[in-house]
Amino acid sequence: MNNIIPNFLKHRAFLTPKRKALLFDNKEWSFSELYKEVEVYAKKIASLGVKRKDSVALLLANRPHTVIIIHALQQLGITTVFLNHRLTASEMVFQLKDSQTALVIGEKDLENKLAEIHDIYPTLVIKTVEEVKKQKEENYPIVNEYLMDDVCSIMYTSGTTGNPKGVLQTYGNHWWSAIGSALNLGLGEDDGWLCAVPLFHISGLSILMRSVIYGMPVYLYEQFNEKIINERLQSGSVTIMSVVSTMLYRLLENLKENRYHERFRCMLLGGGPAPKSLLEACLEKNIPVFQSYGMTETSSQIVTLSPEDSLLKIGSAGKPLFPSQLKIMLDGKQLAANQPGEIVVKGPNITIGYLNRMVANREHFKNGWFFTGDIGYVDEEGYLFVLDRRSDLIISGGENIYPAEIEDVLLSHPNVVEAGITGIDHSLWGQVPIGFVVCKQFIEEAELITYCQERLAKYKIPSKIYFVNELPRNASNKLLRRKLIELIPKG
Amino acid sequence: MNNIIPNFLKHRAFLTPKRKALLFDNKEWSFSELYKEVEVYAKKIASLGVKRKDSVALLLANRPHTVIIIHALQQLGITTVFLNHRLTASEMVFQLKDSQTALVIGEKDLENKLAEIHDIYPTLVIKTVEEVKKQKEENYPIVNEYLMDDVCSIMYTSGTTGNPKGVLQTYGNHWWSAIGSALNLGLGEDDGWLCAVPLFHISGLSILMRSVIYGMPVYLYEQFNEKIINERLQSGSVTIMSVVSTMLYRLLENLKENRYHERFRCMLLGGGPAPKSLLEACLEKNIPVFQSYGMTETSSQIVTLSPEDSLLKIGSAGKPLFPSQLKIMLDGKQLAANQPGEIVVKGPNITIGYLNRMVANREHFKNGWFFTGDIGYVDEEGYLFVLDRRSDLIISGGENIYPAEIEDVLLSHPNVVEAGITGIDHSLWGQVPIGFVVCKQFIEEAELITYCQERLAKYKIPSKIYFVNELPRNASNKLLRRKLIELIPKG
Repeated sequence: MNNIIPNFLKHRAFLTPKRKALLFDNKEWSFSELYKEVEVYAKKIASLGVKRKDSVALLLANRPHTVIIIHALQQLGITTVFLNHRLTASEMVFQLKDSQTALVIGEKDLENKLAEIHDIYPTLVIKTVEEVKKQKEENYPIVNEYLMDDVCSIMYTSGTTGNPKGVLQTYGNHWWSAIGSALNLGLGEDDGWLCAVPLFHISGLSILMRSVIYGMPVYLYEQFNEKIINERLQSGSVTIMSVVSTMLYRLLENLKENRYHERFRCMLLGGGPAPKSLLEACLEKNIPVFQSYGMTETSSQIVTLSPEDSLLKIGSAGKPLFPSQLKIMLDGKQLAANQPGEIVVKGPNITIGYLNRMVANREHFKNGWFFTGDIGYVDEEGYLFVLDRRSDLIISGGENIYPAEIEDVLLSHPNVVEAGITGIDHSLWGQVPIGFVVCKQFIEEAELITYCQERLAKYKIPSKIYFVNELPRNASNKLLRRKLIELIPKG
Repeated sequence: MNNIIPNFLKHRAFLTPKRKALLFDNKEWSFSELYKEVEVYAKKIASLGVKRKDSVALLLANRPHTVIIIHALQQLGITTVFLNHRLTASEMVFQLKDSQTALVIGEKDLENKLAEIHDIYPTLVIKTVEEVKKQKEENYPIVNEYLMDDVCSIMYTSGTTGNPKGVLQTYGNHWWSAIGSALNLGLGEDDGWLCAVPLFHISGLSILMRSVIYGMPVYLYEQFNEKIINERLQSGSVTIMSVVSTMLYRLLENLKENRYHERFRCMLLGGGPAPKSLLEACLEKNIPVFQSYGMTETSSQIVTLSPEDSLLKIGSAGKPLFPSQLKIMLDGKQLAANQPGEIVVKGPNITIGYLNRMVANREHFKNGWFFTGDIGYVDEEGYLFVLDRRSDLIISGGENIYPAEIEDVLLSHPNVVEAGITGIDHSLWGQVPIGFVVCKQFIEEAELITYCQERLAKYKIPSKIYFVNELPRNASNKLLRRKLIELIPKG
């Protein structure tokens, strides 16, 4: 019986129909109102001939109809494939074919992209939201219960090489992720979660799943606008927000001397290691930042810094959520405290595997543990410090160099807004680090190099620092270090 | 991976070692302190020759060593059999043999009872807590992970006929019960749960399980003393307390014009239907009563009235906790709203079955649903109203009479403190109801009969009302209606 759970939204709409579910601009939906609209959409989508266990892909913005369509697909027992807007049409077609997607529902704004997909893959059924709305309603078999092992969603992640891999996220993965988060962050009757991260990313989707599991409103934003969001956080209606460090940086710059409402209790920070200078600035302004570590494969956070530790362990991602476990491995052996190695995790929130990827599955899953490919260590008390994505590791003269450590130093310079480090080939050392920075004002490269020399071992000093207007980031604002190399001026 | 969860206490002591775990008298334990003592006891118990999957029975009071021993047995992977103090030695021996218990650990205060058990069952190993303490420590294999389906505890429940049945409670049952409760009641950083209900009953044990799963302190009391507990509830350190209606009645009487601290947010009321007059008195004093419905087989509450409904649906037990479902059945068919029938529930908190009871298991479990044997109905919005234990139902001239309804009327009389109704055989009607009351002051039987006549249909009027000093209750203060008959004066 551990394996059956009532249909999240339907059960929630039955249990607490009047509670707020969704807020967007000046509109709001209770759970019962949301469910009613979801049922209508489910019937319209059912009329398109898709059925239980089929895959339907979404190319949608952070808008209410996206929330409704995501839930509608779950009512039908359909697996949702989330497409990232920033991909090229041919990258999307790879994902659509890999997941045997039967139908794409797309935003009208993105019709050029939809047309490009059609050109490459003409037999695929593509509908805009407006077209779906015009469908007549067809009865469908209601999914009253979810099986924990049934696949709810597929999101693609890119490695450094090869094609992206489809991460299978089950209903159980989402459920346990939500429960692990609640056991760590607590759960208040007045909680509301602000979602300005993309719904096609696990950071956004996990907020929707928590909403129906907790009975908690989502404050949805289409765009990240620091001014508007800061006003919301000062109003007291929102208690939790998910951010990545660039978002937090922009909020902080805009906030100036103001303070957030005392009910705002958690700034959940994911998407890679955060610079210490940023965390310290938040501390000064009394912003309760909870550093966390997670990925698409763990259905969002799996390690988070608990309230009582946020001041003591600044810079750490914390300890595992209650249902999960963590260890550091190297060459098949578990490492002792303070030894950097691969971060290896276990828990019911972890993906059941990659779609159609036998080799990757064999590499990443061993004895019930998931090998993340990321590098970190735990201290004596078991707190995780994430050093880097393994794929970003620079090895120079046999020394491991973690880009985040150098970026942290650069970001602590008052003039540096963003920083990225990557390795380039070097005849003597194998690789050496080079840097890319976005600055507030003009500054000499030599000054930054000196600044680094005062703070870092010699082999970690960037051999060159480039000044750029922006850094390459993915749809959820994560720094894409392997794309930094493209910023080097040609010739 | 849905089936594996880290060892609750060990993981909790690792995640939040410094948080308060247990308070008793003037002593307190953090989770790390608790775990240290638990490890010592586990080693001492291991030296007695018991091992993983064995059953060990406890005959212990609500004292810190009981908490420690319960956790120690879980470290060893041993199933704990909880003995109710009020049972006779021969009743206990039935349970010990039925559960193939290898060892009993008992309170020194109860050594007479332990001696009686020994007389009946001389080959059984019996140790007092003091004797366990004197054991030397032996290393034992640590259970790092629990399997959700492994049996954690066995508690015996009595039906109306036959021997008591051993309810198998798995780690998963306790986990899901705790999660379902948190999703309904919320989970605050400052939460503390007062336990003055017996630890050998699911109402008490479930508080311990929540404590380690949530990272929340338990305020443990050996005795229920309304004066001392009222002081605690006025202090602000406790936010939640589990009660049955007689406890609540005594608290209320003692509280007089005082009020509880504003941080006290939940009086979780279980143990059978509560009289409306009591709920209304609590409403007046602003006491946040959450009526609930549950039993040993559901690992505590499975239906609870949510915060937003507590005023609107007074007298209802609420809606199912999120992971659970509920329906009303009669003759194999699901009934519509407002039709009384058997309460049937489903969820991962429900026992995997009764030990050694094939027939009872076949009767109670059908298609994943558990047939409780209790009578109730749901209203149009799905709120459960519990009418009675099915075993207490009185059938008079073909009419169903629910004792709780008549008791409610009697309890609304200002002079009546406790009331119990049962049926006696009647040549014409089959059965008729008779009443038993505990009164504050002398009152005429005729006055109470008239009082009932003004409020109830004729066939529900007790044919006789007896005045008694106390009503028969079980160890958790539940009214034992089938024992009322013994109160009738002989001759």
